[in-house]
Amino acid sequence: MSALFQVQATDCQARKGTLSTSHGQVETPAFMPVATQGSVKAIAPDDLKTIGTSILLCNTYHLMLRPGIEIVREMGGLQAFMSWPSPILTDSGGFQTFSLDRMKKVTEEGVLFRSHIDGRNHFWSPETSVEYQEVLGADIAMVLDECAPYGLGESPVREAMDRTHRWAIRCKMIHNKQGQALFAVVQGGISQELRLESADTLMSMDFDGYAVGGLSLGEPKAKTYEIVGLMGSILPRDKPRYLMGVGSPDDLIECIGLGIDIFDCAMPTRVARNGGLFTNLGRVSVKNSRFRKEDKPIDWSCDCYTCKSFSVAYLHHLFKAKELLAYRLASIHNLRFVVRLMEHSRNSILEGTFTAFRDNFLSEYRATDENVRLAQKEKWLRRHR
Amino acid sequence: MSALFQVQATDCQARKGTLSTSHGQVETPAFMPVATQGSVKAIAPDDLKTIGTSILLCNTYHLMLRPGIEIVREMGGLQAFMSWPSPILTDSGGFQTFSLDRMKKVTEEGVLFRSHIDGRNHFWSPETSVEYQEVLGADIAMVLDECAPYGLGESPVREAMDRTHRWAIRCKMIHNKQGQALFAVVQGGISQELRLESADTLMSMDFDGYAVGGLSLGEPKAKTYEIVGLMGSILPRDKPRYLMGVGSPDDLIECIGLGIDIFDCAMPTRVARNGGLFTNLGRVSVKNSRFRKEDKPIDWSCDCYTCKSFSVAYLHHLFKAKELLAYRLASIHNLRFVVRLMEHSRNSILEGTFTAFRDNFLSEYRATDENVRLAQKEKWLRRHR
Repeated sequence: MSALFQVQATDCQARKGTLSTSHGQVETPAFMPVATQGSVKAIAPDDLKTIGTSILLCNTYHLMLRPGIEIVREMGGLQAFMSWPSPILTDSGGFQTFSLDRMKKVTEEGVLFRSHIDGRNHFWSPETSVEYQEVLGADIAMVLDECAPYGLGESPVREAMDRTHRWAIRCKMIHNKQGQALFAVVQGGISQELRLESADTLMSMDFDGYAVGGLSLGEPKAKTYEIVGLMGSILPRDKPRYLMGVGSPDDLIECIGLGIDIFDCAMPTRVARNGGLFTNLGRVSVKNSRFRKEDKPIDWSCDCYTCKSFSVAYLHHLFKAKELLAYRLASIHNLRFVVRLMEHSRNSILEGTFTAFRDNFLSEYRATDENVRLAQKEKWLRRHR
Repeated sequence: MSALFQVQATDCQARKGTLSTSHGQVETPAFMPVATQGSVKAIAPDDLKTIGTSILLCNTYHLMLRPGIEIVREMGGLQAFMSWPSPILTDSGGFQTFSLDRMKKVTEEGVLFRSHIDGRNHFWSPETSVEYQEVLGADIAMVLDECAPYGLGESPVREAMDRTHRWAIRCKMIHNKQGQALFAVVQGGISQELRLESADTLMSMDFDGYAVGGLSLGEPKAKTYEIVGLMGSILPRDKPRYLMGVGSPDDLIECIGLGIDIFDCAMPTRVARNGGLFTNLGRVSVKNSRFRKEDKPIDWSCDCYTCKSFSVAYLHHLFKAKELLAYRLASIHNLRFVVRLMEHSRNSILEGTFTAFRDNFLSEYRATDENVRLAQKEKWLRRHR
């Protein structure tokens, strides 16, 4: 699958690449908005095109339960069903089924879990995961992995990792869809040794791409970056690297600098629906009453529909009045903010100026976060004096 | 204000006209989507332009309570606040304040009512209503009227009507905004005599346009059409006629045939958010399980974004999964359906074929409603045998 991915330029560890699929190309670094149930919440395909999104992630677990894999097949596959003619990655369903309140039993064969919709039991093996993903018809499928929660000892983390490796072989053995890439998932928690072992084992199986799973689960941020950096230095240079579930603006920029190509995260749209909007000076809550009369866009430098058309005061009003439009406009802005970060990263990697771009972005974005924290502390102290 | 409205063609009672405002022209018959709190629910201005909407209605009562008239003024008026640079009509707030659970007291001076947001008392006179509407800056303002509920005897209906006339004078006396038209509201319940008296009284005061209020409140449909027809035959031919709160597809077509130029109604977007979608063969509920696998648009003949992009099966899925996108896509379709009815009406009036268009549309739209009712009855009988 050397045709799948090409690296055009590197800048320190950061890479500018192109992922080629039968539904079009994806310039990397790329961010995948999450279309959990076959829809990016509050956002239509026309918005995604305008935002500059090139690839989406869909959740196999959710689609299997509703509308059902068979319905998506009858409707011509995910792309036709969603009216999204561009690249899609489906996850394996593993992460959702392993969520503690759903999982009933893990055996070597697979996972028995309870539907969050009707409570019914379902069984999910590496083979069913691949089969469902083949029917959904995405451009990239993921192997079924076992993701150990953060905070366990080494023994259960190793057990989950070893099973992940055995399941990866089973997924690769049965995967048989022309034009659909299959990515492995490196596990191993926050242990450098286990991570190296996991990467080595999976690399020997020659997958089309490698994901880093099991991070951003509560471990210290420095640990996240340490493991991501290790992966960036060891995973194959000619294959795409995908960091699962990471998507805050500062984490994205840090991890591009550590050699990651693809990201997914529901956070940008989730916080948007709660009124949290990204700016170069950190995240702001548009519901705050100080925005009641703010007659300017969220971000002057942003070219999204929301910033070009509406004041912060109007967005504040929409959130206060619980108008449905609020969720779309806020989601458009946060997604465009993240997509622009990807565009700027790609350009600066091509120009060899990524490090300067990164350092400048992070100092502005985080300094203000710190200021906000200080201001909040100040306020609290004044109240409690 | 002869420049405000021009009639280009008539076909029996139906009229094709043009309403000219400082924010652009409105071709009539026209339908105004309702932007209650300064936003058409689930729909942005870009959608409204694509749909072909030329004028919106905003509710003064809601905007006064939130975000407040003063904030809208500071943001440059309603058009700037909403990023809707086209014509707007504001209602007087009367209808909302008279709603039984809010109204505390009506006197000759005005209405004392309770806010539905925080329960605080507010007082609303003809003068405050006009003042607020002047500040909001819409192209068309409405006089404060008293709308008697359906089912009262003649005496309270006459009382409300007489007060409406006295308030209309006070509104006209104080109204003083260049470029903002002021429409009167004919009341009089379902009595032909009172309606004639109300129309005569208000016509003698020479308003810029005339609305018909107090209908579609539970009276028999034949009564609605009888009163609307009477108004269509008596209201000035050179002034716009606006039927308040009417907006089902069949009522719109009937009332265009009776001489109405402008309509508003929240129903098309409200039923859309509940999964009720207009088709030429009547309204369908897309949540019905028979649509689970329907791999075709809601309406093949519709040119809206929803019909051009998505199957009924996908819409069914979005509603079942409670995805926010469902509400936007359904609202786009229903609004476009109604706007297309207006376009077809205008064209057929110009061609002198409105009566044939109306009869054909109504026979299809209503026949299927009847079939649906028969099918439902059939089903009920089978169950209860």
